[in-house]
Amino acid sequence: MAVITLTTDFGLQDGYVAAMKGAILAIAQDVRLVDVSHRVPPQDVASGAYILSCAYRYFPAGSVHLTVVDPGVGSARRAIVVETAQHRFVGPDNGSFSAVLHREPTWNAFEIRNSAYFRSVVSPTFHGRDIFGPVAAHLCNGVPPAELGPRIADPARLDLWTVQERENAVVGRIVHVDHFGNAISNLEKRRLGYGDVRVRVGDYAFDRVCRTYAEVPEGEALVLYGSDDTLEVAINGGNAARKMELRRGDRVTVDFGHDSA
Amino acid sequence: MAVITLTTDFGLQDGYVAAMKGAILAIAQDVRLVDVSHRVPPQDVASGAYILSCAYRYFPAGSVHLTVVDPGVGSARRAIVVETAQHRFVGPDNGSFSAVLHREPTWNAFEIRNSAYFRSVVSPTFHGRDIFGPVAAHLCNGVPPAELGPRIADPARLDLWTVQERENAVVGRIVHVDHFGNAISNLEKRRLGYGDVRVRVGDYAFDRVCRTYAEVPEGEALVLYGSDDTLEVAINGGNAARKMELRRGDRVTVDFGHDSA
Amino acid sequence: MAVITLTTDFGLQDGYVAAMKGAILAIAQDVRLVDVSHRVPPQDVASGAYILSCAYRYFPAGSVHLTVVDPGVGSARRAIVVETAQHRFVGPDNGSFSAVLHREPTWNAFEIRNSAYFRSVVSPTFHGRDIFGPVAAHLCNGVPPAELGPRIADPARLDLWTVQERENAVVGRIVHVDHFGNAISNLEKRRLGYGDVRVRVGDYAFDRVCRTYAEVPEGEALVLYGSDDTLEVAINGGNAARKMELRRGDRVTVDFGHDSA
Repeated sequence: MAVITLTTDFGLQDGYVAAMKGAILAIAQDVRLVDVSHRVPPQDVASGAYILSCAYRYFPAGSVHLTVVDPGVGSARRAIVVETAQHRFVGPDNGSFSAVLHREPTWNAFEIRNSAYFRSVVSPTFHGRDIFGPVAAHLCNGVPPAELGPRIADPARLDLWTVQERENAVVGRIVHVDHFGNAISNLEKRRLGYGDVRVRVGDYAFDRVCRTYAEVPEGEALVLYGSDDTLEVAINGGNAARKMELRRGDRVTVDFGHDSA
Repeated sequence: MAVITLTTDFGLQDGYVAAMKGAILAIAQDVRLVDVSHRVPPQDVASGAYILSCAYRYFPAGSVHLTVVDPGVGSARRAIVVETAQHRFVGPDNGSFSAVLHREPTWNAFEIRNSAYFRSVVSPTFHGRDIFGPVAAHLCNGVPPAELGPRIADPARLDLWTVQERENAVVGRIVHVDHFGNAISNLEKRRLGYGDVRVRVGDYAFDRVCRTYAEVPEGEALVLYGSDDTLEVAINGGNAARKMELRRGDRVTVDFGHDSA
Repeated sequence: MAVITLTTDFGLQDGYVAAMKGAILAIAQDVRLVDVSHRVPPQDVASGAYILSCAYRYFPAGSVHLTVVDPGVGSARRAIVVETAQHRFVGPDNGSFSAVLHREPTWNAFEIRNSAYFRSVVSPTFHGRDIFGPVAAHLCNGVPPAELGPRIADPARLDLWTVQERENAVVGRIVHVDHFGNAISNLEKRRLGYGDVRVRVGDYAFDRVCRTYAEVPEGEALVLYGSDDTLEVAINGGNAARKMELRRGDRVTVDFGHDSA
C-alpha cells in the first residue's frame, strides 16, 4: 500500500482536508493516507517546510509527501514535484521543500503542467484538491514525475536556516517552537557534540549540553539535542518558549572552548 | 476498500472518536475511515451540515458519510439513513443533512429502527458508538438501507441558507467562517458570475469579484468565489472575519448593474 | 489488518506523530493506524491513562494500543508491554496503563529491553519513534511479548481513582473534563443505579440521576451516567465544567436513602 503524507495549513475544523483526501481516493483507491500536520500556521510556508522535514524520512521508500501551504494559489507561482533517492514531494513552488532540498544530497525537480492529471475542473482557490492531491495520487499509481512537466533546476528556497561560522563560535536561529514549548535551533549535533561549549539564547546561558530532559530538576531549563539531532532549549516538565519568551528567529550562539577563555 | 467519512463535534482530545472507530472496525474490518472534522462547534448542527456538504462529493461512489452532532441524543429524535445516487449518509434526524438534501436532486430516507444492527448495549448518551457507527459499518458490509427501518419522506431540514431574490439584487448570508478567516456566503457563482456587480457586507462594499486571492495587494480585502463556488469575503494573506468582524448569519447583498444606476 | 491505536501528548501541529507512524509503517506495512488522541495535555500521564481506557475496549481483539505520554523519556523509567485477554499495550512504565490494569481482571506485563526491536539509532528524547512505535509494529508482525524482555509483576500505577465507601455514601472524584465540558467522575453506575440518591459536587446538589441530557430544559444542569457508565455532571446544551467551575480532582459525594433522612 503506497503512502501519501499530508502537510497543510488547512486546519482541522473545515472539510478541506477531507475534500483533498476524497479527490485522492477517487484516483488511487488503495493508497494509505497519513497526516503530518494540518495545523501549520496559516500561510506560514517556512513552518510547513520545517515540520515536513522532521517527518518524511521515517516513511517507507517510495512514499509521496504532499504539502499545501499555498498563499499564492491561483497566481503565477509554479506547481512542482521533487524527487529524491527514496521519496517524492508534491506542492507549490514557494519554498515548501527548502528543508528537504537542504538535507538531500541529490534530487530532481519538475514543474507540474500536464493538466491530464488534474481534476476536470480546477478551482483557482483550491489547488490542493484539484491539482496537488490528484497529482500525488497519480504518482502513487505509477505515473513518472517527468510525465507531469519539464525538469526545472531552480525550485524556490527559503533562506531561513543559515548558520554563521565565527572564530570559536557558531550562530544559528530558533527555527521552530514545538507543542511542548521546546525552542528548536538549526545547530546540528554532529557539528557541536557534547564537549566544551557555552550556549547563549537571549538572556540565558548554558554551560553544558544535556542528553535527556530528566537530567535537570523539574522546572529547570536546559539545552539538549532533540529528536532531529539539533540543539534545543527546553524546561524539564515545562514550556520553555512561553516561560523564557523564545520565538522563531531568535539567535542561538554556541561558543567553543569557553573554559579556557 | 469501502470508505466511511466521519463528521462530529466530539473534539480531538477525548477518546470518543476512537471508541466510535473501534466499534466500526469490530463490524467492518476492512473499511477505510476518513475524518472530515471532529471540530464542529459543540452541538452546532448547522455548522456540521455545512462542513459535510463541502467534502462528501469528492469521495468515491458508494461512500458512507457518518455525521454525529447530536444534542438530542437519547431523546425522541429519529435516527436516519439518507441515500443519494452516489452516497449514503447516517446520523441523527436533526437537520444534519440539510445541505446534502439541498444539493442532491434525488434521495431516499429511512428511519433507523432495527436494533439488530446496533451494539448489543446502547448507551443513552453515545449513539455514535452504539448505533450510528455500527449502522455505517453494516451499510459498508452490504446491508441495504431499507433493512434498517421504514422509509420516511420528511427528514429534518434547517432553513439557514435561503437566498432572497429582489429586483436587481440578491441577498444571502455568511454561512461559514473557515480556518483562514474567509467568510463564505451561500451566493452561488453560477447565478452571479463575474459581471457588473456590487457586493455589500456590513460596512464594506466591493465593486468587482476577483478570481484569486493574489489579485489584490497583501493585506487587502476582496470577494471571490471559493472552492465550493460560492461568494466569499477574504483578505489576501490575512484573516477577513477577524479583521472585518464578520460572522455567520451576516447579510451579503449583491446588486446587479450598479454601474448604470 | 491488525490495528495499532495511538495516544500521545505530541499535539497535532508538529511532525512527531507522523514520524512515529512512519517508523511503524517501515516495519509493519499493512497495519491500520487509528488515533485515539494526540491532545493529551503535555506530560499529563493520568489524563492519557483515562482517555485510553475509554477507547481501547471497542477495538477488535488483537489490537495493539500505543501510549506515549513520557515526561521521563531517556531516564531510568522502564518501557513495558502489558498483555490482557484481548489487547496489548505498549508505552513507558509511568502509570499510563493504570486505568487498564484497574479494569482488566488478568494481565501479564513485560519490560521492553530487547533492542533488536528498536530503530537502529535511538534518540534519548523520542522513544515513541525509536522504541515504542517499532515495538508495537513488531507485536503486530507476530513477535510475542515475552521476546521483548523479562516478565515484571509491578507495572507503575497511579492512584487517582480511589472511591471512598462511607455509611450510606460514596465519595469519588472528577477524573476527566471532556470536550463538551462534561465533568466525569469515577463513580460507577453498577454500584449506584438510579435509585434514591443525592449527588453533591462543590456547591451543587442533585436529587436524581437522569438518563439523557434532554431530560432537563436547555441550559440546566443534571447528573447522568455517561458513555463509560460513570456518573457525570453536565448542562443540557452547555458546558458544565466552565459554567460550574468544575475541575479534575473535585470531590463528588453520593448519599443514599437521603429521602428517609
